Amino acid sequence: MRDQYQQQLDSILTELVEMTGFVRAALSQATEALLEADLTTAETVITGDLAIDDARERIEDESFEILARQAPVAGDLRMLVASLRMVADLERMGDLAVHIAKVARLRYPTRAVPEVLVPTIQFMAETADQMIASAAEIVATRDVNAARELESADDDMDKLRTSMFRILLGDDWSDGVEPAVDMALLGRYYERIGDHAVSMGRRIVFLVTGHHPAHV
Amino acid sequence: MRDQYQQQLDSILTELVEMTGFVRAALSQATEALLEADLTTAETVITGDLAIDDARERIEDESFEILARQAPVAGDLRMLVASLRMVADLERMGDLAVHIAKVARLRYPTRAVPEVLVPTIQFMAETADQMIASAAEIVATRDVNAARELESADDDMDKLRTSMFRILLGDDWSDGVEPAVDMALLGRYYERIGDHAVSMGRRIVFLVTGHHPAHV
Repeated sequence: MRDQYQQQLDSILTELVEMTGFVRAALSQATEALLEADLTTAETVITGDLAIDDARERIEDESFEILARQAPVAGDLRMLVASLRMVADLERMGDLAVHIAKVARLRYPTRAVPEVLVPTIQFMAETADQMIASAAEIVATRDVNAARELESADDDMDKLRTSMFRILLGDDWSDGVEPAVDMALLGRYYERIGDHAVSMGRRIVFLVTGHHPAHV
Repeated sequence: MRDQYQQQLDSILTELVEMTGFVRAALSQATEALLEADLTTAETVITGDLAIDDARERIEDESFEILARQAPVAGDLRMLVASLRMVADLERMGDLAVHIAKVARLRYPTRAVPEVLVPTIQFMAETADQMIASAAEIVATRDVNAARELESADDDMDKLRTSMFRILLGDDWSDGVEPAVDMALLGRYYERIGDHAVSMGRRIVFLVTGHHPAHV
């Protein structure tokens, strides 16, 4: 009985890690759709979000079942509640990938991203992807040292956003208002994806150390 | 014992409703700071966010205590988990009010909002406030009919955002890129505040009816 219970708990963490894989794939496709003005890939991300929502629902149901049947205490209880939050973080990241894909679709066949900002978007996408990967590693290994990487990637993301604003609002910006608005919102979406990865990392750090890092 | 337990559960809902009051005050001040270019009020919102974070922490701690000590089942368990999520929604709304106040601070002594968009921002702020009020009412009364109002206010918010984009991207826009970027992000912040209110309403509808509305 106890073994089965432990297996159920472990399986929730495994499913969370799997879900990070779906989110990374969605984000990578959304960025591709954006940078290649690729309508088919954009649609794939938009319709594919249902699979991420299903994963959320499955993990939630399993967590509720354990909460209701096993009445876990202390550490296990906190782990389950943290899982319910992490699954919400992941679902939200999926929604943000959909927002990115929708910008690609809205501007198709034009590429939404002006040439001068392609590298910034590429770096933002890579940083966000790396942050989700770090969050997954922290969930899988409970290695709280990896959380430091996550905070440092978060600083990189801030710098990318600042540099994006410098370009958008600089004298050399010649692409006008519409792309500037698109880029400001896109920057925000990538940043928020990173924020949710940081949240996930911090939840595990709290579980392992009992210590609240400044929350996101 | 049972009575005390019920009191603890009720007190969590009461505290959630109180917390909606803090969030409404923060949002109203943030909007005032924005529309009046009022630096002092902006600072009040930014520093005052700590009180909202404290409220979150207190409600979380109480929920955990009940979860750990009373091992609630079925309805009570779902209510507690929903409360943990609603408290996260409310904290996030507070963060978004801070983002709004920070735009006011960043552009001070200039008013961030161009004249032509003052009414749109006012309507957005009123709509968001009304949505938080509806969410509070649903939490307090469990009247799921009030959830319909919330969905209709959410449609109003969508329309306001569409109308904002029409102005920003229209031929008559003469305020340039920087205010356009500010306004696009501000529109997003108000919209997200509304989204979190809708989430809260839907969580209660689910608790009461056992029926998942399409999730936010």
